Formats: sequence, C-alpha cells, structure tokens
Amino acid sequence: MPEALPYGAVIGILGGGQLARMLSVAAARLGYRCHVYDPAPNPPAAHVAARATTAPWDDAEALERFAAEVSVITYEFENIPVAALDLLEAQRPIRPSRRALAVSQDRLTEKTFLSGLGLEVAPFAPVEDADSLEAAIETVGLPAILKTRRLGYDGKGQVRLTGAEDAPAALQAIAGAPAILEGFVNFEREVSVIAARGLDGTVACFDPGENVHREGILRTTTVPARLSASQRADAALVAGRILNALDYVGVMGVEMFVTPGGLIVNEIAPRVHNSGHWTQQGCAVDQFEQHIRAIAGWPLGDGSRYADVTMENLIGEDVARVPQIARERNATIHLYGKAEVRPGRKMGHVNRITGPAG
Amino acid sequence: MPEALPYGAVIGILGGGQLARMLSVAAARLGYRCHVYDPAPNPPAAHVAARATTAPWDDAEALERFAAEVSVITYEFENIPVAALDLLEAQRPIRPSRRALAVSQDRLTEKTFLSGLGLEVAPFAPVEDADSLEAAIETVGLPAILKTRRLGYDGKGQVRLTGAEDAPAALQAIAGAPAILEGFVNFEREVSVIAARGLDGTVACFDPGENVHREGILRTTTVPARLSASQRADAALVAGRILNALDYVGVMGVEMFVTPGGLIVNEIAPRVHNSGHWTQQGCAVDQFEQHIRAIAGWPLGDGSRYADVTMENLIGEDVARVPQIARERNATIHLYGKAEVRPGRKMGHVNRITGPAG
Repeated sequence: MPEALPYGAVIGILGGGQLARMLSVAAARLGYRCHVYDPAPNPPAAHVAARATTAPWDDAEALERFAAEVSVITYEFENIPVAALDLLEAQRPIRPSRRALAVSQDRLTEKTFLSGLGLEVAPFAPVEDADSLEAAIETVGLPAILKTRRLGYDGKGQVRLTGAEDAPAALQAIAGAPAILEGFVNFEREVSVIAARGLDGTVACFDPGENVHREGILRTTTVPARLSASQRADAALVAGRILNALDYVGVMGVEMFVTPGGLIVNEIAPRVHNSGHWTQQGCAVDQFEQHIRAIAGWPLGDGSRYADVTMENLIGEDVARVPQIARERNATIHLYGKAEVRPGRKMGHVNRITGPAG
Repeated sequence: MPEALPYGAVIGILGGGQLARMLSVAAARLGYRCHVYDPAPNPPAAHVAARATTAPWDDAEALERFAAEVSVITYEFENIPVAALDLLEAQRPIRPSRRALAVSQDRLTEKTFLSGLGLEVAPFAPVEDADSLEAAIETVGLPAILKTRRLGYDGKGQVRLTGAEDAPAALQAIAGAPAILEGFVNFEREVSVIAARGLDGTVACFDPGENVHREGILRTTTVPARLSASQRADAALVAGRILNALDYVGVMGVEMFVTPGGLIVNEIAPRVHNSGHWTQQGCAVDQFEQHIRAIAGWPLGDGSRYADVTMENLIGEDVARVPQIARERNATIHLYGKAEVRPGRKMGHVNRITGPAG
C-alpha cells in the first residue's frame, strides 16, 4: 500500500463549481483541507474550502503559488488549459493523470482509445471539412450527430443530421472546429458506472445508475438501474478495463448505452460525475470521498449500497420548488450556493431515498 | 409559516469546533454561507466555513463587525460570556434564545426548570458551603455527585461522594464554586433524544439513541435504543414539553436515564449534540441540517430514520485506528481536522450502518 497523504495536508482543486464544493466537504471529513483555484470570484466551492485563489488559467505566478501550497492536485472539469497543467505538474502530482485528461478531452481520441480496448462504441468518423463529412456520413450512416472533438458541455457544440442536406448547416454550426460524426445508437436506456481506482491499483465500482437526460442535460439518476445481473457485471468489467488501461487514480464516470446487443460506451469523464450524486445518500463512502480516498492513497470504499435512491437535478428555475421539496419525507436537498439562477444552470440536486437497497 | 432566511444569507456561528464545522457544511447544503467566530486561530469549522473571525469574546469591535455581517446567530456551545451575547443580541437574533442558554448554563436553574415542568429529575439540592452540603446530603442521600452549577464539560467539575467523610475534599475540589448535589439514579441505560423546534413552533424528534459513556465522555450511541414503544413515545413527549416551554428554536439534545419507574431527565444541551451524530448516516435530514432549518425558518425534517447506526467517538489516540476503520464496510469516517491529538480530545467519529431501519 502506498503512503497516504498525511492528515491535515492540503489538496488543490482546479475549478470551484459544485463538484469541487462537494469534494472539499468530503476531503474535510477525512481530515484534509482544500485550496480551490478558479478564475471566477466567489465560486461555490469557496464557501466550504479552507482557501480559494481567484486567478486566470494563464497567471503563472498564481499557479505556482497555488502548487507550492498544496500536496496533490485534482480537478473538477476536463477543459483545463494545457499550459496551466504543464506548470502545475512540474511541481505537484496531478491525479487523475494527464493521460486520462488527454483521452477524455477529445472525442476522437476517446472513441479511438475505447474501441482499441475492444469495447463497443457508437460508429464514428473524423470530420474536418465538407469532404470528410461526406465520407463520414458514408461510414457512419444517418441519422447521426456532428460533435466538436474538444469537449462541449451539456449538449453544446452538437448538431443532429437526419439527411445529407443538413451537412452544410451542421458544418457552419460548429464553425469549422475539428469534429467527429457519431452514429445513432438504438438504446433501451442509458446507465452510468461511477468507478474508482486507488493509488495501489484497486478498482471499486458503485452500482450502475439509470440516467434520464432532457435537452442534453441530466435530469435524474435512479439506482438500482433496470439491468440484468449479467449486464450489471458487464458494466463493472467495462469500467474496470478503462481505469486499468489508463493506470487511473481517482473516480471516473462512465456513461453507457444499454442495447439488446450489449453495452456501448458513450463517454467517460475523468472526475466525479453528476450521475454519481446519489451515492451521497446511498453509500457509506460516496463518490466524492471515494475520489479523495483514491488521490490521497487511502483504501477505497467497496461501493456497497444500502439504499435505493433517485437523484433529481435542480436546473434553473427548478430551484423555486425547494420549499415544497423541503417538506418531502426522505428527500435530501443539496444546493450549490450559486448566486444567480440561469436557465439550464445546475443549481442543486435532490436525493430521494426510496427504500432500503433492493 | 414565517419567512425563511433568504438563499445565500450568512449565518453566524459562535464557536468553531466540530459542531460548528458540521453545521457549516449543512448550512452550505441549504444554500447559506457561514461565518464562524472563535477566539482560537484556525478552528476546525474554519476549514469549511465561508468566513472566520479570530477574536476574544470581549472584543466588542470584532463582535459588532461579526454581527453586522450575518443575518442570524447560533452557537455550538453554552459557555458564551453574557456580555458578548448582550452585544450580539442588540444587533441580530440569537437562536436558540438567551432563555435556553440561561437555563442550561446553570445546573440548578436547569433542574428547577425541568422539575417545574412536572418532569422527573434526579434528587438535587443547592450547595454553597459546608453547612448547605450537609443539608443537601440529608435531602439527596448518598452516594451522590457534587457538581459545579456552571457547566463543566465532559465530566470536569464533578466529584463523587460515597460517605459524609468525603464532604470536605469534595468542597475543596470544586474550589468554593456554587454547586449542586445530585443523587445517584439507578438506571438501566442512558438514552438521548435529539429534538428540534421550528420558527413556527413545529416539533420533530429523531429516534432516541442509546449512549455509552466512559470516564465521563460519550463513547458510542446506538439506534435503535433498547426501549419499549411506550418509553419511546414518552421520550419524545418529554423532549417536546421542554422545547415548547422554552419557546425554543433549533436542535436540543435531551439526555435521559431509563429506569423501571420511567424516564428521568439528566440534562439538556441547547445545541446539536454528540449523541445525534448518527443522524448523518441514518436520516435524510441530519441534526445539523435540522438545526439550520429551524433557525433559518425552513420546515423541519420529520426525523424519520432509514438505517440502524452505531456512532463511535474517536477520542485521543483512537484516531490512530482510522486506517483500519477505512477498510470496514459501511463505516463512514468523520474527522474534525484538529491539528493536535490530546488524551480525551474528540478527534472524530465513525458512523457504522448496521442495517436498514429496524
């Protein structure tokens, strides 16, 4: 077993949104303090972190000062500029590693990596211009989705093509960015596995959650997902294969489509994941603590679940329902402390305990 | 229903120990920020609070600045100097109220108040000197415990008398402080009820927990406590009567002895209570959130429990067992971030989920 981060050490978190906020609370529970780095002033995580730095990603001095004050660095989102990461990594370990970030930051790299592991993914082809789009339509078929290779977020940077005549408009919509055409998958449901790998290489998975999206945004995750025992086992095996291949350290969200032919990996996120928020009320060690345990060299929680839970995101004006939700039995409210309500903005979530683990 | 504290408002907490730390996290979950006031630098709560003031209790300027920056004030311990409270209360509401503090700060006032409500308490008599001690022994009988009227903490300021010959040494031990002699109660077990009363007067109780003390310090709390259905109902009724009589707002810990003749109230604490830490893993709304809900004018959680839990305190060197505990299934670790391990010091606690609510 590798040496654990000493009690009282400071963990640096890149990004100060709700994921960093919940990571910070979990780290405190294990006796650590957190230092959050975010270009925006007063981010949600700063309310519960020991320290916060407000500085842009290209402020070398601020980055170096931040790195000097922390023992290990993690992140809550994938789009951290490469130059900042180079600078930080020269001083402190970044967990999960750069490789995980590189793979997941680019949809083409990601799909190529996943299919290289022998995992099923949606048909895909690279797109750079009108010619390659035409060729991609040939390969992938229609309908399909044209997505920018670099990450969009919550459905941004994605255009649907139903006929060849949609091609010019689609190309225009993504404004010439390197892209990937993905075929549609005829799936019964979408699930995700929140998996973790420790510093010692141990892998632990939480039960798969069943996700419902609307307008490209996750609305609910329900455990248990409607899966057969063999699908459940497959889901954990798929996640484990990905984590091991990346020599990964930390929590990863793996989204999968359930089809009659088996599981198809949709995408991976090298961080704690919205579809894992249910673990806060369903497990002794939730995904946030699991991530901190992994990057701090602790033994992982085994992922066992003691309750059935449905997580509902509170998006934009959903937050106005909080006074009603507060009267519900067995509902736990998590608000993110964001100052401004905006349409499509994740303001919080609710975990509803629906019974003992079934 | 009274108006709830607006989303994003700042709650002031007097004291920055582990109770303030867990209150701060709960307040953040409901969208509030916390400002902690503590004379000691870098207290545990400061790691997860939006703001911390380090200043003594007699720093009028610091107190006034603190009050000006918060919307409501609460506290995590009872021994706050009266002058500080006077100053703060002139600017902002203090919840729970001064009356609850006054009653619980003085063992004689407390016992008199409780027996005035028609509740059973241990036999008691005031002690000021050798003569009144002799009279008290006459009234109360022996063995008995001589306790200072003002609060000690975790068994400090208490002397046991088994014979009349112990009287001089006992008086010397409490150094002439105003005191109370309490008779021994022959009890089967000790339980506590964590009860809450909202701004609108609603009362909600968590299930009674069964407590085990050693050397005057709480070691474990187990739910469910071994109580009959009628004892369980009695416990909630007793707690409700106390809260209503004080027009109380917030969470209170009520310790009771279970005897063949019924429940005897031992003491009350006008705050979240160590014996309520199990609620973090057993309830959708835990005692910390319940307290914040009460003082912020939210509807209370109903106190329903979905798991059986045993809470174990990690006292002093117990914390060295954390690496082993981290490998246990269904154990949730809560460390307080205290820099120094000292004998008898509460360093953290573990909640072990032992099954679905039974």
